[in-house]
Amino acid sequence: MADANRQIVLDRLPQGDKLASEHFRLTETARPTPGEGEVLLRTRYISLDAANRAWMQGATYRSALTSGQVMAGGALAEVVESNVPNLKAGDTVFTDTGWQDYAVLPGKRLEKLPAMEPMTHLMSVYGIAGLTAYFGLLKCGRPKAGETVVVSAAAGSVGSIVGQIARIKGCKVVGVAGGAEKGRWLVEELGFDAALDYKAGGLRQQMKEAVPEGIDVYFDNTGGEIFETCLFAMKNFGRIACCGAVSQYDGAAPPHGPRGIPGLIVTKRLTLQGFVVMDFDDERGAALKELEGWVASGQLKVQEDIIDGLENTPAALIGLLNGENRGKRMVKVR
Amino acid sequence: MADANRQIVLDRLPQGDKLASEHFRLTETARPTPGEGEVLLRTRYISLDAANRAWMQGATYRSALTSGQVMAGGALAEVVESNVPNLKAGDTVFTDTGWQDYAVLPGKRLEKLPAMEPMTHLMSVYGIAGLTAYFGLLKCGRPKAGETVVVSAAAGSVGSIVGQIARIKGCKVVGVAGGAEKGRWLVEELGFDAALDYKAGGLRQQMKEAVPEGIDVYFDNTGGEIFETCLFAMKNFGRIACCGAVSQYDGAAPPHGPRGIPGLIVTKRLTLQGFVVMDFDDERGAALKELEGWVASGQLKVQEDIIDGLENTPAALIGLLNGENRGKRMVKVR
Repeated sequence: MADANRQIVLDRLPQGDKLASEHFRLTETARPTPGEGEVLLRTRYISLDAANRAWMQGATYRSALTSGQVMAGGALAEVVESNVPNLKAGDTVFTDTGWQDYAVLPGKRLEKLPAMEPMTHLMSVYGIAGLTAYFGLLKCGRPKAGETVVVSAAAGSVGSIVGQIARIKGCKVVGVAGGAEKGRWLVEELGFDAALDYKAGGLRQQMKEAVPEGIDVYFDNTGGEIFETCLFAMKNFGRIACCGAVSQYDGAAPPHGPRGIPGLIVTKRLTLQGFVVMDFDDERGAALKELEGWVASGQLKVQEDIIDGLENTPAALIGLLNGENRGKRMVKVR
Repeated sequence: MADANRQIVLDRLPQGDKLASEHFRLTETARPTPGEGEVLLRTRYISLDAANRAWMQGATYRSALTSGQVMAGGALAEVVESNVPNLKAGDTVFTDTGWQDYAVLPGKRLEKLPAMEPMTHLMSVYGIAGLTAYFGLLKCGRPKAGETVVVSAAAGSVGSIVGQIARIKGCKVVGVAGGAEKGRWLVEELGFDAALDYKAGGLRQQMKEAVPEGIDVYFDNTGGEIFETCLFAMKNFGRIACCGAVSQYDGAAPPHGPRGIPGLIVTKRLTLQGFVVMDFDDERGAALKELEGWVASGQLKVQEDIIDGLENTPAALIGLLNGENRGKRMVKVR
């Protein structure tokens, strides 16, 4: 049915429990029609991000999700009909379409993306993941050649790029990821110097062996125990870029934070800096140019994890929260 | 006995319990004699600092204290005999003499302090306390006129100066201190805009009422619950200067850190920065000049809390850890 619009609704918010398929429901409505100043978009690829789950916990840098709404999420979308001068049918944009086939949105603030093959790169290395890695590492972590950089969720969309940029910048790079297979991939394919397996236990000991010199820059995607382990392994004057806390999104809010705060911040003279990629919008053009150069020269490998079918989006997110993806996970809508 | 040297020995280290007088013992030895390259110092005023207690917990920016040693501590001291060209009898220095009447130390790295009346100002506003407040606030907190600054341990040696500098810089200043009397002093004598009493309970509610707009800069001297309360009250892009964690020095190490780490650092894009005053030694001259100007003009009031007698030094430190001082606490040795 060409005019149907499949939608995945956040049927009820998880209340401190882990996200599961029963929190979602698939429904169908009529394809919407754009009004004045609006565009009709066809969703092509939906981005899966740990942040999707964080939005269910409360207001963050955006307002909290509520039950009954179409699940929110960024996506690459194609303009089908446009009532604004800045966009025409066939253009590609990245915006929060939500998890549905079609969305009608105000067109004024949407930005036409360049044509690219494959277009999915617009959502991985040249999208939020790549820019988050780039700005978080270089602006907040500020690594210098010869320093030691540790990144958590290292096999994820952001972490896998963070580690590669750190390597390009001449750093020793250690990734923390779940499972030996991911670790092998980080070292053998992406050129990490070492990978630690947090699922294998004894992370503190693994860290001591891999990073006896201490950490200069820690790029944190996880929070929780991995954060604490790295905090205790930091060198004096180290920097921690706080990007996300995926270990703490799916379930009840943790009753406590990591030990050593603020004591170790003082004695080691650490800097912790939180950031959201939008904070660096002004510098996006220059960042994309540098990323493109690294991809073109083969120094930066792009890993995408593409799942087919809108109906599989809830499972794709649940799997991501359980750490099953490698690189940027997305759903090809149809 | 003119040749005697009274010493206070750290008889045993507190093992996770609160510091008490039985951890110390007073002893007496002969006055030491300086050798080649050494100076004999007579201790005049011993500085009491929360850091004294932290040194008993383990290595920090200095090695840990051990039981049986003369208790370590900075002091203003007078040169009695000098075997180095850079110092002569009668000169004043600030160094770690330990808690004793006399100390012999290598003279090469000691620096003659300017003559000053009262000399105690060399250890309060122009000493570690004043410089810690100055650099921590201005370099790590980076307040701008019109912003809201909150400082904990606000009636202490550092906090009372932090708040006054923030006021001089055109900020709204709120201090957290224990007891209504300290609060009145902060507001009426030092010009704070408000004071919160953490001993009265309901700190989060007090904060909401005093700082409904949120905190731009939090200068943390305490860690623990006050830190957590301020973290949750921070504005986006706020800065936290991590100076010390006095709430966590006297007793067992806390099993957990504050909630909201690193989640709130990310969503609010906060910067937390730890520092130690020595990190800014290069800029000390300029800082002292600015502090002197503020004291001379009456904008910055100096509060000192002077206790008489070397034998009272343990009680003076224990009292400081319990929050009984107002301004810079020190012991006049004899």
